[in-house]
Amino acid sequence: MSTIRRSARCLIDGTAREGTIEDDAFIYTGGRASLASVTFLPPCIPSKIIGIGRNYADHAAELANPLPAEPLLFFKPSSALNHHNGAVTYPVHSQRVDYEGELGVVIGVRCKAVPRSRAHEVIMGYTICNDFTARDLQRTDGQWARAKGFDGFAPIGPCIASGIEPSDLRLRTRLNGVVKQDATTASLVFDVPALVEYVSAAFTLEPGDVISTGTPAGVGPVQPGDVVEVEIESIGVLRNTIVAPG
Amino acid sequence: MSTIRRSARCLIDGTAREGTIEDDAFIYTGGRASLASVTFLPPCIPSKIIGIGRNYADHAAELANPLPAEPLLFFKPSSALNHHNGAVTYPVHSQRVDYEGELGVVIGVRCKAVPRSRAHEVIMGYTICNDFTARDLQRTDGQWARAKGFDGFAPIGPCIASGIEPSDLRLRTRLNGVVKQDATTASLVFDVPALVEYVSAAFTLEPGDVISTGTPAGVGPVQPGDVVEVEIESIGVLRNTIVAPG
Repeated sequence: MSTIRRSARCLIDGTAREGTIEDDAFIYTGGRASLASVTFLPPCIPSKIIGIGRNYADHAAELANPLPAEPLLFFKPSSALNHHNGAVTYPVHSQRVDYEGELGVVIGVRCKAVPRSRAHEVIMGYTICNDFTARDLQRTDGQWARAKGFDGFAPIGPCIASGIEPSDLRLRTRLNGVVKQDATTASLVFDVPALVEYVSAAFTLEPGDVISTGTPAGVGPVQPGDVVEVEIESIGVLRNTIVAPG
Repeated sequence: MSTIRRSARCLIDGTAREGTIEDDAFIYTGGRASLASVTFLPPCIPSKIIGIGRNYADHAAELANPLPAEPLLFFKPSSALNHHNGAVTYPVHSQRVDYEGELGVVIGVRCKAVPRSRAHEVIMGYTICNDFTARDLQRTDGQWARAKGFDGFAPIGPCIASGIEPSDLRLRTRLNGVVKQDATTASLVFDVPALVEYVSAAFTLEPGDVISTGTPAGVGPVQPGDVVEVEIESIGVLRNTIVAPG
């Protein structure tokens, strides 16, 4: 049985530090800080964030979409990257922004065309993603670049958990403390090894790249002032606050 | 009248050098090399490449697509980045890969929400892009991430030309020496300042980011062994060769 390790990046006195989360502390070379006292950064710096659409049957159904025959891929830009406790600015372009709690797969080594049987060899660990989506623009734009890509729309964190098995992790999303999504990754249409195979068949993956594996049923709108928490068993809680534009 | 400057990045004896192209030479600090002797690199390192779909009326018509009411945005991943004289591997996933010659706008400073009247302040210069597209997957996948995102599908170069005016540049694409696209950027549906305004309203842009402004009519398929050249007045020629998969 492997030991779970939770790596994170935090700002300590203005300096970005890499370390691990142990109980209520962030442990880094030369120091220890309480989690309440640190500013979290994204736990990795992805050169690309690959999102997966409609990868839980109940979510596809709630938006009246058919299940895809193959994984449905899209990109979120690096300018969308956000972090645990980060503010998500409600864009002026949209009247309907939804949370989408998701399991994130963090790639550990440069790789291409990885068969699913070897996917575990290229995975550094697992994180939590909130794939914020401007639902109205997703429908009207056709391509999802803007709807999924506004600044701050890709919170990732709080850590990368390694030594965990991703095939049956409970995922819950809470909006202002009320549970809105409650599912397990066992319900993924395309599971983690299948996604790594499919995505790496198309694109060379780099260390730190993230595959956000899709969201279960229960998506819904946020408003400025709302607090969204996505909790995944064995990883932690990713918390973000929605703020009004400038 | 401003002077045209063409900046490029090339490998000289295994080291990446920044310099300028003057006539048939690459001039860098401490040296000068003939263009025939150097290996070109992408002239910038984009954190994101934003493509624009259906931005010439004649191209939208040739694919039987309506003209969009707003710019149609998509992303090409950094793993797709390629360079002048680079090989483009024909992906095994597709039976129909098309060239798409395009004017590229290179951003010079971090910026957000730039009004079109100030777009020139954030533009470093202009380059040439070939927005290779797996036309069959573009239709079947729905989202264009794979179709536009395969490794090597984003050649950019050979240089970044500054001191030029982008509003009426002749663009020609040649396939094995035969002219296939011949247009001017005066026919862009959304011109460069409008695109900078629209894109930067959604995403923070970083130095080196590229907006590929869309392709005119005349797109068509390539095969392994083909040579595609995109020439844009005042910038130069971007040449790429198609190769069969490994």
